[in-house]
Amino acid sequence: MKRIMLTVAYDGTDYSGWQIQPHAETIEGILNRELSALLHEEIHVIGASRTDAGVHAEGAVCVFDTESRIPPEKFSYALNQSLPQDIRIRASEEVDPDFHPRRCECRKTYAYRIWHDKFPLPTKERYTYWVYTKLDVERMRKGASYLVGQHDFASFCSTHTQTEHTVRTIYYLSVLEEGREITILVCGDGFLYNMVRIIAGTLIEIGQGKREPESVKDMLLARDRASSGPTAPPQGLCLMEYEFE
Amino acid sequence: MKRIMLTVAYDGTDYSGWQIQPHAETIEGILNRELSALLHEEIHVIGASRTDAGVHAEGAVCVFDTESRIPPEKFSYALNQSLPQDIRIRASEEVDPDFHPRRCECRKTYAYRIWHDKFPLPTKERYTYWVYTKLDVERMRKGASYLVGQHDFASFCSTHTQTEHTVRTIYYLSVLEEGREITILVCGDGFLYNMVRIIAGTLIEIGQGKREPESVKDMLLARDRASSGPTAPPQGLCLMEYEFE
Repeated sequence: MKRIMLTVAYDGTDYSGWQIQPHAETIEGILNRELSALLHEEIHVIGASRTDAGVHAEGAVCVFDTESRIPPEKFSYALNQSLPQDIRIRASEEVDPDFHPRRCECRKTYAYRIWHDKFPLPTKERYTYWVYTKLDVERMRKGASYLVGQHDFASFCSTHTQTEHTVRTIYYLSVLEEGREITILVCGDGFLYNMVRIIAGTLIEIGQGKREPESVKDMLLARDRASSGPTAPPQGLCLMEYEFE
Repeated sequence: MKRIMLTVAYDGTDYSGWQIQPHAETIEGILNRELSALLHEEIHVIGASRTDAGVHAEGAVCVFDTESRIPPEKFSYALNQSLPQDIRIRASEEVDPDFHPRRCECRKTYAYRIWHDKFPLPTKERYTYWVYTKLDVERMRKGASYLVGQHDFASFCSTHTQTEHTVRTIYYLSVLEEGREITILVCGDGFLYNMVRIIAGTLIEIGQGKREPESVKDMLLARDRASSGPTAPPQGLCLMEYEFE
């Protein structure tokens, strides 16, 4: 028996998110199905985190246990043969049998992309959130600066989750501008449910002048979802990378 | 009667190219249909150039004549209401009634994008050509340098065209590298049929070591399609911009 870790990329447009569901196509469901067929074992992957419907990934991570004698680095090649084109295994490797991707220290990086122009651009539409109003990137950067560090992010977590522990650390939160594309790049030790999309929605409202950059300090203190901005739509979000200790 | 110029962006994935065809969805066909319905006139747009099936555009250009009293800059808003989501009008303006987008001096810019990694990345697949072999970008840049300037590009033109005049000027041809994405950005006074895709296919073979950078000089002299590299696939190509004098 060995434990294999997969690095998975996907275009989330046509999927109901990561987590397995009875009557919907999900990344986890497809991986379980294709791995089980490939290995003639019943495989259940353990994901490092769950992305919502429509969210993309360049570097999602999951593990599974197998009796297979396929060399660890070959799983990616074998599995890519049968996976749909919008899901690709970028790497496969053997890990310690005790390694659990949700019970270990790690750094996670997400990108939230905004297309900032009068009209949407068709070649950007699948992977960006189109914002046509004026956005002041300097204001967004200032607002972002208050979120860096260890904070209680209860105000940046969707209310229908019951998480007790809402303290997280953000290592960096950059607002990058390249032509008409604005990318919010955020790296932290973990993210609450919808946290990156709420941060994006809040920074957009700050960029639009609807909120002040300094108001972020009050949001953190409020510990109330109602104090922060809207949840930005899923297609702008991409899970970029996991770095395990 | 006034002549209106449209700047058009599209995701070419689901279309049979620009040029109108009897039994296929094309950009020109859809623009004629939707403009005619909007204006209650029979409209035939004149495109500045034709892109092939699967090729994208951020800044294609066409003109049409109309009796409509809609303000010129409002055509974009009106037309975007009825166009499919993967076609957007980015700008509309009135031009001189004599202005013909194929009979005037202009600079055209195309981008050809390559995803250079062991595995394809789903979120890049619609807009890049995946190359998994080693690519030496410096060799590609050296090969590209011989194409800049005024040359007879007969070797870089698909054979089933009957163009007599195959002399064109390339103003710049840059090979940009950003992480695993390589972009060939080329600006010229005009391009022969499939010319950018043949240049891309040739530079990729040079990057792979299958051809020498200096061999480009012989290709130009040969005036023979057989002397250059393969035509790279359409999804990597994007028509970026027209600049009229």
